[in-house]
Amino acid sequence: MTVAPIITFLSDYGLEDDFVGVCHAVIAGRCPQARVIDLTHGVPRHDVRAGALILRGALPYLPVGVHLAVVDPGVGGERRAIAVTTADGRLFVGPDNGLLSPAADAAGGILEVVDIGRSHFRLEPVSATFHGRDIFAPVAAHLARGAALADAGTAVDPASLVRLDLPTPSVSPGALTAHAVYIDRFGNVQLDAERRHAAEARLHPTHAVAIETSTAGASARALARYARTFGGAAPGELLLYEDSYRRLAIAVNQGDAAAQLALKPGDQVRILPES
Amino acid sequence: MTVAPIITFLSDYGLEDDFVGVCHAVIAGRCPQARVIDLTHGVPRHDVRAGALILRGALPYLPVGVHLAVVDPGVGGERRAIAVTTADGRLFVGPDNGLLSPAADAAGGILEVVDIGRSHFRLEPVSATFHGRDIFAPVAAHLARGAALADAGTAVDPASLVRLDLPTPSVSPGALTAHAVYIDRFGNVQLDAERRHAAEARLHPTHAVAIETSTAGASARALARYARTFGGAAPGELLLYEDSYRRLAIAVNQGDAAAQLALKPGDQVRILPES
Amino acid sequence: MTVAPIITFLSDYGLEDDFVGVCHAVIAGRCPQARVIDLTHGVPRHDVRAGALILRGALPYLPVGVHLAVVDPGVGGERRAIAVTTADGRLFVGPDNGLLSPAADAAGGILEVVDIGRSHFRLEPVSATFHGRDIFAPVAAHLARGAALADAGTAVDPASLVRLDLPTPSVSPGALTAHAVYIDRFGNVQLDAERRHAAEARLHPTHAVAIETSTAGASARALARYARTFGGAAPGELLLYEDSYRRLAIAVNQGDAAAQLALKPGDQVRILPES
Repeated sequence: MTVAPIITFLSDYGLEDDFVGVCHAVIAGRCPQARVIDLTHGVPRHDVRAGALILRGALPYLPVGVHLAVVDPGVGGERRAIAVTTADGRLFVGPDNGLLSPAADAAGGILEVVDIGRSHFRLEPVSATFHGRDIFAPVAAHLARGAALADAGTAVDPASLVRLDLPTPSVSPGALTAHAVYIDRFGNVQLDAERRHAAEARLHPTHAVAIETSTAGASARALARYARTFGGAAPGELLLYEDSYRRLAIAVNQGDAAAQLALKPGDQVRILPES
Repeated sequence: MTVAPIITFLSDYGLEDDFVGVCHAVIAGRCPQARVIDLTHGVPRHDVRAGALILRGALPYLPVGVHLAVVDPGVGGERRAIAVTTADGRLFVGPDNGLLSPAADAAGGILEVVDIGRSHFRLEPVSATFHGRDIFAPVAAHLARGAALADAGTAVDPASLVRLDLPTPSVSPGALTAHAVYIDRFGNVQLDAERRHAAEARLHPTHAVAIETSTAGASARALARYARTFGGAAPGELLLYEDSYRRLAIAVNQGDAAAQLALKPGDQVRILPES
Repeated sequence: MTVAPIITFLSDYGLEDDFVGVCHAVIAGRCPQARVIDLTHGVPRHDVRAGALILRGALPYLPVGVHLAVVDPGVGGERRAIAVTTADGRLFVGPDNGLLSPAADAAGGILEVVDIGRSHFRLEPVSATFHGRDIFAPVAAHLARGAALADAGTAVDPASLVRLDLPTPSVSPGALTAHAVYIDRFGNVQLDAERRHAAEARLHPTHAVAIETSTAGASARALARYARTFGGAAPGELLLYEDSYRRLAIAVNQGDAAAQLALKPGDQVRILPES
């Protein structure tokens, strides 16, 4: 049995409407043998950064294939539509708004980029508002069935791609300053820091830490445990832990940390040892 | 590689429960080679008209195949269960409540219809409340694997099918009267009018228009721009535009038009030039 | 065409995040030929009992294959991870917390069990919080492609599996005492009783019955019709009926019974003839 080509698909389309289903149908009509894996369609609407971070985080688990991603607040405007090849043999298709770059960089680095805005694989007439259906899905399908990148569009300088300004954590002895980058449906708050940052800030596993937040002008301070698993905290207790993507995260055992700390993506969090 | 038969699947089952998954399982047991495309399961509960319009709107993008659709407030009652062939080679399977007719009409017209309520492909015993699992999915699977329509049920006069009473827009020089037919999860309000209606009503692209609504006894008037893309309006600005299904629609750039105008499906909207 | 192996997948992961998509990707990388059927990912978070009952209820409709199920409040703690074979040729993979047992018992009974917590099929390093991705999905994929159970882990005594304490209905002439076991998205309340229990309690189809509930210390009594279909009750009327899984259930025709009766899973319900 030959292995079917893989297309992964991430978007902010949600599943209430037929946006995702119609893109699947467009792909099936052009590359019937492709296996389409819905990575998620629950990216918060228009949140390019969240989409970019989810895609980059999931990348190590995705088979090599075509990675279709559409979070596209600028659809119909000036932003370019692109397809990208990377050093490890992957293809990325989506808007040139920073959504693809972190994952493409992590996939061995960008090799070639084409502008697919006028690709002859696109559906005519192209609508002003649904490029997922009219440009991105058909181009992804043709690439999955083996079309050359050069046939999908016109070459673009990889250095010209839009890049995200991602926050970075900072460390001083005794304080880790990080940022909420993603909040999952359980209210777990993923930070942009890793265990090594915590170590540099002299935060010790199983010890107590203090979490300082400052949202809407009001500061708050809460105690948490730096635990290895949820089981390392009592139900209702706040914990700092390394999540499954090897990022530090804040959770409440059997509760909702984002709600409890009033945190949203982008918010700054300071974490200090609690003696 | 032979191409797998396609089954598209639309319903109001939602994805919280196992209704959709069990229908997939029933299909996989009867036609393992079928590729099932979930068009959407987010049709508002029991909203036959919304389901019918989504199916008809998506049709041009769907590969020829079996189109399974279940929005079925009359399940277990008198309504018939049907399978329909159309002139362009498609098959539609679902309840005879108007859900299938607009799409089947758009698919070149209805050729043959069978009543599948007692199909020998159905699962026994048939429940009173879940014909998606017990009748529609197994019949769709058998048709996808090549069963003849005549084997799926007993012939019915196509003229006897239930049809929806769909609203129609009306135009006078200087006023377009249309209706909200579908509201997507972004709050964009699709109307039953097209660009030609706007032209007849002397509404000019890029010009300002007035939108008059009358809901719950209260009239309201709002200004909007008749724009080509979302980018043609400022954030928060109301706009009239041609959506990706080539219908006129009302949106708020980066906002929720349905909420702002208090519109729901079926509501009337009058649009006038704003001089 | 050879038939693709089937993996069904149930979880409480929801579809907002990429948890489900990443598990699909992990499976596709290890068993590209598998067909994965999402049974549902809408199990209420951490509700092992609801997941177990949904899996058992759906079982008769699932093709023989690998049944992956993850509702896992104890992830990262002491609970075992297991794979189970049953007499009718099925394989179940998930946490040993009672989630799998009701379905495995219904699948002809458990034959063999292995502990897969240290399976050499797992992804290294194993995270503390996402065993669906790191243990359950890869083990399910390898079993679907034909790996022997003994290769997936170390043998465990089937008698040692965790079992759920499921409620049971009780009957006296003139009263059926049952429990709400599952509430679907329409607010229909499935009970742990069947039609025979109603007959023993002298409840007669098409007759009126009284439904007594007692929640949060307050008792309530409501009248309902013991109907065969939703059509057997007026819109807004409460009805007792046999649902599509052949369980007794309480619904409101075109309404939400769980909200109207303030019922949640586990609550007791007494049903009496209404003369």
